[in-house]
Amino acid sequence: MGLDGFFTPRSVAVIGASPRSGLLSRPLRYLSEFGYAGGVYPVNPRYQEINGLPCYPSIDAVPGPVDLALLQVPAAATQAVVGDCAAAGVRSVIVLASGYAEVGADGRVLQEDLARLARETGVRVIGPNCQGTLYAPAKLAATFTAGADGGFDARAASTGLAYIGQSGAVGGSVLGLARERRQPLTAWVSTGNQADVTFVEATRYLLADDHIRVCMGYVEDVGDAAARADYADLAREAAARGKSLVVLRSGRSDVGRRAVAAHTGTLVPADDDFEEVSRRHGVVVAHDVDELLECGIALAQGRRYGSGRVGVVTSSGGAGSLFADHLRALGLEVPEIGMDGQRRLAEIVPGFGAVANPVDVTAQLFQADTARFSEVCRLVAGEPEVDVVGVVLTMVTGDAADAVAAGLFEVAGGLDKPLAVAWIAGEAQTRTARAALNAAGINVFPSVGALARLIARLSGAGARPPVPPQRPGGALAESESER
Amino acid sequence: MGLDGFFTPRSVAVIGASPRSGLLSRPLRYLSEFGYAGGVYPVNPRYQEINGLPCYPSIDAVPGPVDLALLQVPAAATQAVVGDCAAAGVRSVIVLASGYAEVGADGRVLQEDLARLARETGVRVIGPNCQGTLYAPAKLAATFTAGADGGFDARAASTGLAYIGQSGAVGGSVLGLARERRQPLTAWVSTGNQADVTFVEATRYLLADDHIRVCMGYVEDVGDAAARADYADLAREAAARGKSLVVLRSGRSDVGRRAVAAHTGTLVPADDDFEEVSRRHGVVVAHDVDELLECGIALAQGRRYGSGRVGVVTSSGGAGSLFADHLRALGLEVPEIGMDGQRRLAEIVPGFGAVANPVDVTAQLFQADTARFSEVCRLVAGEPEVDVVGVVLTMVTGDAADAVAAGLFEVAGGLDKPLAVAWIAGEAQTRTARAALNAAGINVFPSVGALARLIARLSGAGARPPVPPQRPGGALAESESER
Repeated sequence: MGLDGFFTPRSVAVIGASPRSGLLSRPLRYLSEFGYAGGVYPVNPRYQEINGLPCYPSIDAVPGPVDLALLQVPAAATQAVVGDCAAAGVRSVIVLASGYAEVGADGRVLQEDLARLARETGVRVIGPNCQGTLYAPAKLAATFTAGADGGFDARAASTGLAYIGQSGAVGGSVLGLARERRQPLTAWVSTGNQADVTFVEATRYLLADDHIRVCMGYVEDVGDAAARADYADLAREAAARGKSLVVLRSGRSDVGRRAVAAHTGTLVPADDDFEEVSRRHGVVVAHDVDELLECGIALAQGRRYGSGRVGVVTSSGGAGSLFADHLRALGLEVPEIGMDGQRRLAEIVPGFGAVANPVDVTAQLFQADTARFSEVCRLVAGEPEVDVVGVVLTMVTGDAADAVAAGLFEVAGGLDKPLAVAWIAGEAQTRTARAALNAAGINVFPSVGALARLIARLSGAGARPPVPPQRPGGALAESESER
Repeated sequence: MGLDGFFTPRSVAVIGASPRSGLLSRPLRYLSEFGYAGGVYPVNPRYQEINGLPCYPSIDAVPGPVDLALLQVPAAATQAVVGDCAAAGVRSVIVLASGYAEVGADGRVLQEDLARLARETGVRVIGPNCQGTLYAPAKLAATFTAGADGGFDARAASTGLAYIGQSGAVGGSVLGLARERRQPLTAWVSTGNQADVTFVEATRYLLADDHIRVCMGYVEDVGDAAARADYADLAREAAARGKSLVVLRSGRSDVGRRAVAAHTGTLVPADDDFEEVSRRHGVVVAHDVDELLECGIALAQGRRYGSGRVGVVTSSGGAGSLFADHLRALGLEVPEIGMDGQRRLAEIVPGFGAVANPVDVTAQLFQADTARFSEVCRLVAGEPEVDVVGVVLTMVTGDAADAVAAGLFEVAGGLDKPLAVAWIAGEAQTRTARAALNAAGINVFPSVGALARLIARLSGAGARPPVPPQRPGGALAESESER
């Protein structure tokens, strides 16, 4: 119960379904492409049939029971249609329409009416001004986000990653990028203006789901003091369940708040302590869309970043020192490796390289044998003063790149510490190598700055990875059994 | 004269040439792949012929005059071979060997010997511990960097971009990334340990070259007080020539300095004022490899970023507010657009969007007609309080993406203000659109943070774009004539 209707409905009615191309045609197409097995009922009085499915004039004309209604009708018509849904026994409704609190006073009234109707009828509403839901275990895609393009990805059911956010556009980007990163999302929900179901409620629901290990949230505001207390409870609950929360928050600046008000009608107080509260409760705070996703992927690997003391292994002395500069600017430590460790490293690293940390293996090492590079990474990870291994590669390309990636995959799998990579080289020259690391859930960034920011976000008291999954079929359990 | 021998030699001897695969085989291969038209003389007593070219036992056995010798011999043999080169009349020598100041006291002595030999014989030396030079107008690739893979790119002669840096690895990344960005470099030089030719001298040489508009530098240290004064002169000279300098500097932190010392033997003083001096003289300071390249590409477009007041146009209210947060955190302004401007925008932007700045055109606008999006960008650029247009796109993909890119290309070409893009969507779903913008020299970033950092680096007193090229054949003149 609760929000089941939005994620595991037995049937979906698409009200205002359209056979034409464009946004409104997408939900029906996605449901079909994903292979959703439940009943799908297009509703629109103007059509007899859409995409080979019988189309019904109204929700009460639909023959079977409907668990979820996806409303694609304009704001002005929505209130009546939600009433019809309630009368027809539909318990879960997604309202895609815009034209509510985000457009000002009139819209705010409309939104309050919608919220009241939800309370009075007991119908649960996601939206308005949202983009719907997606849930891989049920092959459900009740959304029009272009992030769902490309059909169902079987890996999605086991990554354990969920996105919950007010912004469907940001969510669509996360959804599409995650797929390209070969870590497709297990669950996705755009809560929009949150007339009824909020970010906190949706996140709590997904945290209780065995398929989910990490919830990635985009929030503009969590609401009043009560909602804020609720959010703190949520964070504690995540910790108790051994799961992780990472949030991307907008409206941190004066102009950002102005934009947020125009976006979802949310009024963010200038003095709010959202980030502080988040960190205090072990929630990771990201500052950019790519950061949100990369933090989520890293957390799903279940390795602790500790206090973020970085062991740097690099193919370039120059790039290594740049990376060290970024780490230090973010307050992270790059501890000098002990003399014993340096001696062991010096047996592998050419004399004109460096072994103190950053460890500069030099480009020459890759000409000889990439296994030696793996060994260096393993040695650095073994140093007690190192919490995380940061690998910085420059023009290691082609066959050498593939060999290095295979080595890193093997090394990372055997470590209880995290390993992440900055690979400063053309995408085309390193494509298969990056894809292999991506599929293994290893973060690969195009710059040392991005890698340093990941480590900064995930380290310190604020970052707590989830307990590794025990159930079979989890992505991590799966990849570990392959080794 | 001066450094001509390193960039426009009539002939090149590769001493220690090798027919085997690996680093040492690359210079001969690159010279051939690039279509270098001058004489190429492999030198190695162990071979009669390499890759179909006659191979000579020593430099004095080479039949024709040699302008440039590329030394691929170990450090221990280098001193003698440089002496041979001097005796044979070679005036320019690149020393690739490592094992000099970067390995400690012994290497430092070796490097001083090399520097003395250069002074005494008048032979100019680039290196040691460097990766050579590349110069597109002469189709010269006297280097082993993998960044030269892929052959000669005809566009390289006209981008006007040069890289000068101690690090060949960082340089190789810049070279490869620039090619992938469809803005291949016109000139490239890795100065390594700088026993003779320094970053400052090489940069001064290239600034005087009509083919070059922007010099991108990677520096660890410019040297003593005299060298520093020389650097300030260089910056003034760039300004006087209407050209731009952008530098990436490592060794800004304690650990970075430790790494730099191990890398090229450079001792960077902890209290140095390099960045301050740079900015004071109009040099742009980048903090990451990708930033260095993106700043260079932006500067080559010749549009001023002024004080960096950003007009934001976005397809997503959420992403727009995130972008505003980043801009504000970097001290940049996002001015509210005047009432007249807002009225004009409101005629195009849907009511549930926003027109104050950020301007949220909403995803819906892209369903209708992408020309309206172009018009919004043009209107925002026309506002007097806007210095630069920052476009933030989320899941605008496929055909709509291509149409948007074509529109942005047209808009950007007609503006005297810069326009740059953050496109937060999968690479695969936006590939052709990104490629079109890349080819036009428009910066496209994967995150709002990266776009905000570009604007921060390029705005304020510190950033001065070069005077647009007047000569025919320049990249900018070319692309403008296409419009």
